[in-house]
Amino acid sequence: MTDKAPTAPKIALAPRTHTTPPAKFSHGVRKGNILQVAGQVGFLPAEEGRPPTLAGPTLREQTLQTLANVRAVLEEGGATWDDVMMLRVYLTDVDHFAEMNEIYDAYFEEQGLTQPPAARTTVYVGLPPGLLIEIDALAVLG
Amino acid sequence: MTDKAPTAPKIALAPRTHTTPPAKFSHGVRKGNILQVAGQVGFLPAEEGRPPTLAGPTLREQTLQTLANVRAVLEEGGATWDDVMMLRVYLTDVDHFAEMNEIYDAYFEEQGLTQPPAARTTVYVGLPPGLLIEIDALAVLG
Amino acid sequence: MTDKAPTAPKIALAPRTHTTPPAKFSHGVRKGNILQVAGQVGFLPAEEGRPPTLAGPTLREQTLQTLANVRAVLEEGGATWDDVMMLRVYLTDVDHFAEMNEIYDAYFEEQGLTQPPAARTTVYVGLPPGLLIEIDALAVLG
Repeated sequence: MTDKAPTAPKIALAPRTHTTPPAKFSHGVRKGNILQVAGQVGFLPAEEGRPPTLAGPTLREQTLQTLANVRAVLEEGGATWDDVMMLRVYLTDVDHFAEMNEIYDAYFEEQGLTQPPAARTTVYVGLPPGLLIEIDALAVLG
Repeated sequence: MTDKAPTAPKIALAPRTHTTPPAKFSHGVRKGNILQVAGQVGFLPAEEGRPPTLAGPTLREQTLQTLANVRAVLEEGGATWDDVMMLRVYLTDVDHFAEMNEIYDAYFEEQGLTQPPAARTTVYVGLPPGLLIEIDALAVLG
Repeated sequence: MTDKAPTAPKIALAPRTHTTPPAKFSHGVRKGNILQVAGQVGFLPAEEGRPPTLAGPTLREQTLQTLANVRAVLEEGGATWDDVMMLRVYLTDVDHFAEMNEIYDAYFEEQGLTQPPAARTTVYVGLPPGLLIEIDALAVLG
């Protein structure tokens, strides 16, 4: 007997709505009760033959689409917002903080969480042109 | 029998010293043996009727207060520095790296760790005006 | 009976090839089945009496050395790329994204993964002069 956990496979989480990643990474992975969502941005659901397309140029459009994309990966892995421990929010402009918080709070109000909200870190970085927000998530299921 | 872990609640960690977060997120959450601390900054312990107030304008003041704030969340969740796996340090200025390391090392020297120090990543980002440092932490208890 | 996991020690992961960290942090730590790799950069294997030295000035040299350094920490902890859940890639220039992806994909093609690739977030930050890339990793073993 050792304290080694039973071997769990690593499962790729690739919602059908999602565009193909630009490199060999997964939109999400789950192994045992740990689920990691890759950095999501405000791309609309994929359509064949169309390149990745932003939900729109505004912070509101991109934030809501980004959160929808994070949620789709969580659901693909059998998780919900209630399982999320940490959200990392990357903005490009400090002046977007207050508006992002308003959108964020209204969004989670609607999601009907039954457990405490996740922890969060928000920092201001560079992102590819046109992108105003990126979010990734760590969840623990069970 | 499955390898599903027993259901553990997600517990919000909100030290009484902490200011209210500016959005619907938790200063920390614990679920089972995983504890995540949200990005902490150099705010002094909350006082009723006073808005969040920095410990001071200097890197030293803010780094020490930020570490104290991370520690308070860890303790609220039953963890100590020894349980911390990863610290993410966000600075605003590359020129602050050496001084932050001095303060960091002296601080942890005083904490009397009994286990190896956490891993760490330091990057340089934008933060709201006046903030020189932000730190978050992932801990595994037990 | 409680649902408390058996106590696992936190083990520092310090490959002999690695330069000494500039502060009291570990290049990697493992506790139970969780392994965290600290932010790695493109430093060549350490040589006594030589300060930390970059593999070269180019994105290609630094990316490949950085990935080798992440891998060395994983292996020190008994893990492989297959165990990695999340890679955080920090670049300094948005214009490096496409080239980094090419290098990244070719590298992982050669690694012969048997499980899905890790999730990933890439953001653009400041790094100390000369550094073009930094990468850290979270792995779940077993």
